[in-house]
Amino acid sequence: MMNKTGRYTFLAEPFHCDFQRRLFASCLGNDMLNAAEYHSRERGFGMDFLNPLGLTWVLSRLSIEMDEMPRELTHYDVETWCESAMRYFTKRNFRICDTDTSRTLGYGRSVWAMIDTTRRTPADILAVKDGEIVRWAAPDEPCPIAPCNRITAKAEAEARTVEKTMNYSDVDVNGHVNSVKYIEHILDAFSLDWHRSHKIRRLDIAYVAESHAGDTLTLSVSQPDEETYVVIVTRPADSKRQEVVRAKIRASISKQVDE
Amino acid sequence: MMNKTGRYTFLAEPFHCDFQRRLFASCLGNDMLNAAEYHSRERGFGMDFLNPLGLTWVLSRLSIEMDEMPRELTHYDVETWCESAMRYFTKRNFRICDTDTSRTLGYGRSVWAMIDTTRRTPADILAVKDGEIVRWAAPDEPCPIAPCNRITAKAEAEARTVEKTMNYSDVDVNGHVNSVKYIEHILDAFSLDWHRSHKIRRLDIAYVAESHAGDTLTLSVSQPDEETYVVIVTRPADSKRQEVVRAKIRASISKQVDE
Repeated sequence: MMNKTGRYTFLAEPFHCDFQRRLFASCLGNDMLNAAEYHSRERGFGMDFLNPLGLTWVLSRLSIEMDEMPRELTHYDVETWCESAMRYFTKRNFRICDTDTSRTLGYGRSVWAMIDTTRRTPADILAVKDGEIVRWAAPDEPCPIAPCNRITAKAEAEARTVEKTMNYSDVDVNGHVNSVKYIEHILDAFSLDWHRSHKIRRLDIAYVAESHAGDTLTLSVSQPDEETYVVIVTRPADSKRQEVVRAKIRASISKQVDE
Repeated sequence: MMNKTGRYTFLAEPFHCDFQRRLFASCLGNDMLNAAEYHSRERGFGMDFLNPLGLTWVLSRLSIEMDEMPRELTHYDVETWCESAMRYFTKRNFRICDTDTSRTLGYGRSVWAMIDTTRRTPADILAVKDGEIVRWAAPDEPCPIAPCNRITAKAEAEARTVEKTMNYSDVDVNGHVNSVKYIEHILDAFSLDWHRSHKIRRLDIAYVAESHAGDTLTLSVSQPDEETYVVIVTRPADSKRQEVVRAKIRASISKQVDE
């Protein structure tokens, strides 16, 4: 019988690493989402099975908490498993480790909904294959990081803002800006000097609504306390602004000791 | 004895594919540059050997000409070999094919210089290991696309311009905007509608100078004839503008027949 946990190996390619030779968080997010799909697919719940039924997985929240980002040209494994499956949400967790030593580099958590692709409405996850997904749940598998909590900080008047227009390279087959690109744009709202002097410990991101190619997104960055940053991403909608993504970054000031 | 040609397999991951479920040209470029490094490394001329000597490869030109881009979730192979090695330049070619069928999807060409990383000046390629690189040259390996010719079109007054500020996610360990990100930004200068109605046949890109995080690049897009677009990328330098990258795109108007 197949394990409840899947394990997939990736390589920190040079162009996927930042100026400190560490994997970009957006690229790690990409690998985590790929691992999620490989894991689901192998167990009969992948997009290949769902899409022909008019169903798809939609990422609702993603949290990544890393002690250390994979270093350039090293291999790392992403382990993933379902913590639980409920009617409208599944929780999926991740462990990232060094391939050679199995040393843990960090953990991730995510929350997924299933939607009806025609009506764009929530679908009953437990109605698929008579709730078979429940038998893959591994609630006792340890994931020693805080859950994907609601990001409560409000948009602050004194927040600095960055504008970004979404283009060809940002969108997926549905014309929606893809989950991984939001991570890239959010981290690009911080200068190279900031990245040089800070180490990101944890990234929480909540996907609230869709944005599209041609949308000019506004990223409002506020800092409720010394180690916490909130980024609220909005798009123009009629005369108002609609919230698209909300992210929280916990970062500590670090001396750079790389290389 | 090791082959003169190396062959490496890649997967068209979902987040690396565009809204038409075809691999982004920037991602193909990434794979080609990775294949180049794997090929060099296996033959003793990789960055791992050169960097400790204070030398590095610098990509000068890249041309990609595709009949068809790899489709989402298919595997494709990148074959690469050195066409020739001269004192200041090597020519490296590529063939991209479907992994399962070996059907050719397209070809690539590139020109590389070697530089002294301290002085940032050209280095003599044939002085490394007594010119051993020459024995890897495979001038008779077919690469039936035009060479990386000089891109001659001038910046035109009537060109439309797009501005892009370079950030954290654009730069490599030297703080320079990376070769692959230029491809992404250049293709982002064309709307989703343009991409929907055009098929890119060939992309030529010449890397002229470095740009850095914080630089606001101007992309000037002109169209000398119906199927040809020239994109000249400049950065601010003192009171003038310095040319950084020059690209030529050949694209035909296509009916969309995907899926």
